[in-house]
Amino acid sequence: MDLRGRHVISIADFSREEILHILRSAAEMELGRPAEPLAGRLMATLFFEPSTRTRLSFEAAMLKLGGRVMGFSDPGSSSAKKGESLADTIRMIERYADVIVMRHPRDGAARLAAEVSRVPVINGGDGSNQHPTQTFLDLYTISRIFPQLVEGGLTVGFAGDLRYGRTVHSLISALCHFGGRIKLVAPRGLELPPQYEQEARAHGLHIETVPTLQAAIDACDVLYMTRLQEERFPDPLEFDHIKASYRITASMLSSAKPSMRILHPLPRVNEIAADVDDTVHAHYFTQAANGIPVRQAILGLVLGAV
Amino acid sequence: MDLRGRHVISIADFSREEILHILRSAAEMELGRPAEPLAGRLMATLFFEPSTRTRLSFEAAMLKLGGRVMGFSDPGSSSAKKGESLADTIRMIERYADVIVMRHPRDGAARLAAEVSRVPVINGGDGSNQHPTQTFLDLYTISRIFPQLVEGGLTVGFAGDLRYGRTVHSLISALCHFGGRIKLVAPRGLELPPQYEQEARAHGLHIETVPTLQAAIDACDVLYMTRLQEERFPDPLEFDHIKASYRITASMLSSAKPSMRILHPLPRVNEIAADVDDTVHAHYFTQAANGIPVRQAILGLVLGAV
Amino acid sequence: MDLRGRHVISIADFSREEILHILRSAAEMELGRPAEPLAGRLMATLFFEPSTRTRLSFEAAMLKLGGRVMGFSDPGSSSAKKGESLADTIRMIERYADVIVMRHPRDGAARLAAEVSRVPVINGGDGSNQHPTQTFLDLYTISRIFPQLVEGGLTVGFAGDLRYGRTVHSLISALCHFGGRIKLVAPRGLELPPQYEQEARAHGLHIETVPTLQAAIDACDVLYMTRLQEERFPDPLEFDHIKASYRITASMLSSAKPSMRILHPLPRVNEIAADVDDTVHAHYFTQAANGIPVRQAILGLVLGAV
Repeated sequence: MDLRGRHVISIADFSREEILHILRSAAEMELGRPAEPLAGRLMATLFFEPSTRTRLSFEAAMLKLGGRVMGFSDPGSSSAKKGESLADTIRMIERYADVIVMRHPRDGAARLAAEVSRVPVINGGDGSNQHPTQTFLDLYTISRIFPQLVEGGLTVGFAGDLRYGRTVHSLISALCHFGGRIKLVAPRGLELPPQYEQEARAHGLHIETVPTLQAAIDACDVLYMTRLQEERFPDPLEFDHIKASYRITASMLSSAKPSMRILHPLPRVNEIAADVDDTVHAHYFTQAANGIPVRQAILGLVLGAV
Repeated sequence: MDLRGRHVISIADFSREEILHILRSAAEMELGRPAEPLAGRLMATLFFEPSTRTRLSFEAAMLKLGGRVMGFSDPGSSSAKKGESLADTIRMIERYADVIVMRHPRDGAARLAAEVSRVPVINGGDGSNQHPTQTFLDLYTISRIFPQLVEGGLTVGFAGDLRYGRTVHSLISALCHFGGRIKLVAPRGLELPPQYEQEARAHGLHIETVPTLQAAIDACDVLYMTRLQEERFPDPLEFDHIKASYRITASMLSSAKPSMRILHPLPRVNEIAADVDDTVHAHYFTQAANGIPVRQAILGLVLGAV
Repeated sequence: MDLRGRHVISIADFSREEILHILRSAAEMELGRPAEPLAGRLMATLFFEPSTRTRLSFEAAMLKLGGRVMGFSDPGSSSAKKGESLADTIRMIERYADVIVMRHPRDGAARLAAEVSRVPVINGGDGSNQHPTQTFLDLYTISRIFPQLVEGGLTVGFAGDLRYGRTVHSLISALCHFGGRIKLVAPRGLELPPQYEQEARAHGLHIETVPTLQAAIDACDVLYMTRLQEERFPDPLEFDHIKASYRITASMLSSAKPSMRILHPLPRVNEIAADVDDTVHAHYFTQAANGIPVRQAILGLVLGAV
């Protein structure tokens, strides 16, 4: 399967077979390769919005494959503030670099960049829209623990802000390739938008809302936790109240399946108590670490080097 | 010709023969070299003022030659705000790096840095003063399209802010080495300072002002367009009016020579309409791309490695 | 001696033998090594507070040893502002990088990071607390000029802000391993905290306060000068007055020992006049340059590669 030259803008652009190919390639990367397949290649990281985790994991991935990195981590140092259009910035950078990793506050910015760029553009998050490499690493993380993912044998729970959480939307869309059961639990007003529920049903998944976080913990193989953001709540008191009921503590895990694993796109604030970190269920730091082999695989594949 | 150890502060520091040597070296760089002549060498990028384009093209140039890069892209992260003098900062960095690329908001800062540094200092722009590598890439771009540049056979037009545009001043000075004809068109109050006109005449160039942008388009082999900056105009209404008459659109190009090429130091804002991009006359993105081989040549030459 | 995997948090964590081992390793680094012992290793620079000098000298050290570098230079681009705890940030980065260099405005932050990290953490300064690699480079600088340091044969003076200057405190603690004589001179209110004086006496050093900067200059082999910071003085007039009496000029050096050397952690502002730079006594830029071999030694040692 040849992904050379492909842009990586939305998880929806990838077929089941392509997703599985990327996950297999990530597994090979994780074994470690002494060679440097991207020696002499140059990656530009254009972060029109800061994101330490995404940027550093792309940079680590590129550097570990022998490639080189340049870019900016902050809109303040870009030409955008002189009034340059994004299209013009991309037309310049595509002549300097072999691949562009871009994060932008505006929905659709990555797609626009891909349309003008002759080198692959990898979307590192565009507004509330897409962050496909996060979804690849979520899938990779799940498939490493539960190979039965691809046969639709899993129950995956989603908790927290399901309305605005783009990682949730993308992962649910991706799970449509594989089947299985989905459990949802969200505060009133932050429920999953109906189109994602419809999409899942249309693909034969069993999807339902459960009443409490505890119910999700008890039912799932994988629980995908997200952060509640205070700015989504008009009333600070309401936020404090809701926050308390969307917080996992170690004592809540006694009735979970022993094999259950908690994921979180990070950063977490209060929604997972520190005492969870020491349980067998905590898997979010391993998930973050999986960003490296997954991004190595994507970089290697779009550059035609692995 | 040995340029090892040379500072690159002003285009005026270079003879005709040296300029031609650098352009030839850039052409060799553009052919691509498998070797890494700057392996083990370290470039420091000291950007006391942000400039994405200049910084990234220097970094790409260094990395493509096998060198390594460190530095800052923003005055906020420099020691200058603790009150350290520029001379002291340079005395530190020259002990860490093999070559220094510096951009500074103050006129003359690069010359000062060169006076205290034992490693080559390359001026990436100092205030309104000089930006010599831009001029080298402008010359390189013109010479690649029109080899007759060096025999003085070209008509080069300059349009827009000719008073404050340092790239215009430097390129006119550099053209004095080669001869030819120059056409100028600028809003009232933003005309070319008389000393540049005198310098051109003293070197035997034919230089004259034309009444309209259209007249410049029709007369030139190369049209060098620049950005008008609102802050130069006391009256916003006047700016809007002038801006409209300093804007190239595709329809204005029908009477241009077929071989005419438009350059622009970028970023452009409104002064070149997007429909120009698809004409044969648009050459500004290729010009930007030429920043890489030109800066490769300069880095290689001052480090004595090519 | 095996320092593989060691965190470098405080100079107090190192024995006399370990310090000497690091200084010997730095001397080997300074000879230059053609090999790249850290090829394939990745250093993360986490600067929650900007520090150009420290960051660039670590980066230069890593790059010169063939390693690679990524990170942030500024808290603005870190996840900390999304509310992520330092511990979580470290748990992520330790999975991306082989060694972490960290600077943080909070006392004790580096120790906390070391407690959660499985890769070595090197403290690049935590608040007013510790900056151990500065102390190693200070010791290295002194030992290169005066090998008799290790036999306690030196008189070292400290001038300026001895109360808040963490480089002063750490160097005095380190000198306790070697013996010798210490002379102190500080403005009223900025004297050395008594515990450091007691520590020095307990280790058999002769330590005393001298009345004037001139007295310190005349008595010492090494004079360690520090910057007075205006914000330490309630009264700006008092600051101006004190500043004038804590300023070394070339004419004050005529009665110094010919072999006397002035050190300064830099940046200096007014406390060392520019005319001192041209005297044989000025040694602060060489001191800054020694940051490279010392940090190369530390990186090589904690990574088990030299």
